[in-house]
Amino acid sequence: MGAGDAGTVTPAGGAATAAEAVREAVERAAAAWEAWRAAGPAGRARALEAAAEALLDHTEELWPVADAETHLGETRLRGEIARTAAQLRLFAGVLRDGGYLEATIDHPDPEATPPRPDVRRMNHPIGVVAVFAASNFPFAFSVAGGDTASALAAGCPVVVKAHEGHPKTSELTASVVRQALPDPALLGLVHGFEAGEPLVTHPRVAAVGFTGSLAGGKAIQALIRRRPDPIPFYGELGSVNPVIVLPSADPAAVAEGFAASLTLGVGQFCTNPGLVFVPADRPEFERAIADAVAKTTGGRMLTAKIRDGYLRGVDRIAGAGLAVLARGRAGSAPDAVAPQVFVTDLDAFAAGLPALAEECFGPASIVVRYGDPAELPAVLRRLPGSLTATVHAASPGEAGGLVPVLERLAGRLIWNGWPTGVAVCWAMHHGGPWPATTSAAHTSVGAASIKRWLVPVAYQDWPAELLPPEVRDGNPLGVPQRVNGRLVRP
Amino acid sequence: MGAGDAGTVTPAGGAATAAEAVREAVERAAAAWEAWRAAGPAGRARALEAAAEALLDHTEELWPVADAETHLGETRLRGEIARTAAQLRLFAGVLRDGGYLEATIDHPDPEATPPRPDVRRMNHPIGVVAVFAASNFPFAFSVAGGDTASALAAGCPVVVKAHEGHPKTSELTASVVRQALPDPALLGLVHGFEAGEPLVTHPRVAAVGFTGSLAGGKAIQALIRRRPDPIPFYGELGSVNPVIVLPSADPAAVAEGFAASLTLGVGQFCTNPGLVFVPADRPEFERAIADAVAKTTGGRMLTAKIRDGYLRGVDRIAGAGLAVLARGRAGSAPDAVAPQVFVTDLDAFAAGLPALAEECFGPASIVVRYGDPAELPAVLRRLPGSLTATVHAASPGEAGGLVPVLERLAGRLIWNGWPTGVAVCWAMHHGGPWPATTSAAHTSVGAASIKRWLVPVAYQDWPAELLPPEVRDGNPLGVPQRVNGRLVRP
Repeated sequence: MGAGDAGTVTPAGGAATAAEAVREAVERAAAAWEAWRAAGPAGRARALEAAAEALLDHTEELWPVADAETHLGETRLRGEIARTAAQLRLFAGVLRDGGYLEATIDHPDPEATPPRPDVRRMNHPIGVVAVFAASNFPFAFSVAGGDTASALAAGCPVVVKAHEGHPKTSELTASVVRQALPDPALLGLVHGFEAGEPLVTHPRVAAVGFTGSLAGGKAIQALIRRRPDPIPFYGELGSVNPVIVLPSADPAAVAEGFAASLTLGVGQFCTNPGLVFVPADRPEFERAIADAVAKTTGGRMLTAKIRDGYLRGVDRIAGAGLAVLARGRAGSAPDAVAPQVFVTDLDAFAAGLPALAEECFGPASIVVRYGDPAELPAVLRRLPGSLTATVHAASPGEAGGLVPVLERLAGRLIWNGWPTGVAVCWAMHHGGPWPATTSAAHTSVGAASIKRWLVPVAYQDWPAELLPPEVRDGNPLGVPQRVNGRLVRP
Repeated sequence: MGAGDAGTVTPAGGAATAAEAVREAVERAAAAWEAWRAAGPAGRARALEAAAEALLDHTEELWPVADAETHLGETRLRGEIARTAAQLRLFAGVLRDGGYLEATIDHPDPEATPPRPDVRRMNHPIGVVAVFAASNFPFAFSVAGGDTASALAAGCPVVVKAHEGHPKTSELTASVVRQALPDPALLGLVHGFEAGEPLVTHPRVAAVGFTGSLAGGKAIQALIRRRPDPIPFYGELGSVNPVIVLPSADPAAVAEGFAASLTLGVGQFCTNPGLVFVPADRPEFERAIADAVAKTTGGRMLTAKIRDGYLRGVDRIAGAGLAVLARGRAGSAPDAVAPQVFVTDLDAFAAGLPALAEECFGPASIVVRYGDPAELPAVLRRLPGSLTATVHAASPGEAGGLVPVLERLAGRLIWNGWPTGVAVCWAMHHGGPWPATTSAAHTSVGAASIKRWLVPVAYQDWPAELLPPEVRDGNPLGVPQRVNGRLVRP
């Protein structure tokens, strides 16, 4: 439900928000925009820090509600609340830094032909942002997650469509965060599949963020295409995250790391390692992986729908004729699923593309045996875009030929590590070519994710008193400026 | 036709490129990508400067060919060739500066919970770019125009769809520029309406740039939507470019500037001032505008299709019941059209929205009388997005209330000037909300236009010897880097 809109949903709820209430949430958010924009980077930074504090202060209430809905456990959920608070604080830092404004000043050049006027440019917020929360991160990619934090930082009000898997967590988070915002309408919250259409087709919604499945992303994109205006859609969708194990890697370390990454959070990460290429002439990799996976335990997945999808995905791989390399235990939780790893060789895998490179959301993976690393690029070029690609090797020289291929395949390249665990920092890029995301140029994690919600305005011969302070001479706010083509640090 | 693909089109030509030849041009461009990418910013900067030199060296051949096709005249066309060369040089400067790479380095933090890995990010070229050339700038927004220059700078090969209005100019330009490129396939050229579909649906095309009409842009967007992958489409479409004349402005200066801007290039600019708001209680504005426009001369438009569109647009405005305020002379050129300015009052204009705010491409404009400047925001908020919005006033204080409205309405705000003439510089933003463009976050003129063709890659714990030099410690290329959140100038 929308901020302050009692009736359709209670904080204990999960009932669908009626279309009219969705539209009202957007309109309240739009009405709150001007003041939020005018609060400026400093004012918004303080509010984001207050939101971070509020979340941390309510950890004891938040995690049990989320655990009841997601079964992710206390440790993970406490960690995720801390991560969510850290994200909000990162954006406070981004606002105080001011580089995101891309303040650019070109002084006039009356000697040029034709004479060049005074031109200054900076970024402004795009407007109301609709955010579709993820199933698998009830805090960090949900109501107060990265999309919301970056959009609020940019100066945009947000209306979140809660994920059906954790409506109570969503309501509680929204009520906590709203306490820290100058206007509760800056964070609207709506529920239910049917809420998507009135949300993304509302004329006042200026951009959409989404974290979820490829099918879900395509459905939202189809709704957005009904609009007369083509608003940006930033979807983080499916990814198989290939891992390339070169012959020099250490089998025990690879197997242990792989099994841990595969089964973390019952495999419910967009960065789950779904494909592992191992050298055929070193069977110790397969053996070590089989042993490590056999010792793992799965667990209960987020929702019955997600579990059903996982079981269908595993059946699809088995149905394609792939042998099971190893199976973990399901564990004792109700409806728990077991990790499963399949094995095939490179030719059979290539023959099974593109189907064999479809994401199977959950703790499943395919081990692909290759004969010679030189055979890998041709197959890697046929893979769909991924969020990550990983190389395991003892020496960099071994991997040199793969780098140009991997740079086009994935948004983040990892060396001797595992793709799960996305650091929230300035340099992070959590994105990648389609179908990993709808826009390979953008990230949904880290400082650069604020760019999704910004639009520039240029001011030509504009009077100093009407210019935003960010692009005034003398740089009163001390932001990074590019002046006559030269980057000037404050 | 594609580079080196003889037969379907000769440099004297204009015949349509067959679908198969379009696909071949894309595939040759794709094959040329790796070497162009590997040439690095320094190598590409040298090639762009050589292309600029080559264009200037061929000015005497280029302008007459363009004049025969476009009737734009020697002075304008010589100026436009110089502008096109200046654009190529600007991007050489952008490459040498290196800020466009957004090199970002976060060193590891083993003390963090969880420990933070080493993460580095920089931008890479997106792939083959398709460019649809504009009718009205046979050089600056055509084969070697801003889209091509920025895409080549980014490291992307380009395939241009020539505008039907100047095919010979397009072929000649391409042959001149190719001499300066290490591989002629980096600049493909195709002709004909039918070439659009195989071009934008080719799997190797990674992004599309377009300058043209709203209808044309929608048609390209529809073609792109047939693709399985949603590639970015950067269209610069229609714009009415409202001008707000506040009571304190000088009638003579406004009238003179308006008449000149309206009729420059027979009004064939996307930044043509199509709406002028003047105070009703100062009839001297209308009188001065009528006098100035009556003294203007139109001319021959670029193509018969464009002329027909202009005449239909003028009929549409007249058919809506608007009175003619002034009409210029057509002049003696064959098929010449006359400038026309209509007049109405604010209420009637508001009642005629959105139709009265549709662009009429050519030297036509509507003068709208308002009673009180305070009445303007409500009407301005109902206007479609524009590339520019202009204010004329003697004192900034008079305009303060308009600024937040204008910042949402247009991409460039101009004070006491005119929107025609777009400076090619670092701070320029030639963009705006829909339908001015398909992506309000991007510009098609100026240094920032390179961003359209870039995608980031992050490197996690990646070995130094495999990292691009731009994100290595020690900054061997001397590019701007953000290190642990702090912007570091080389």
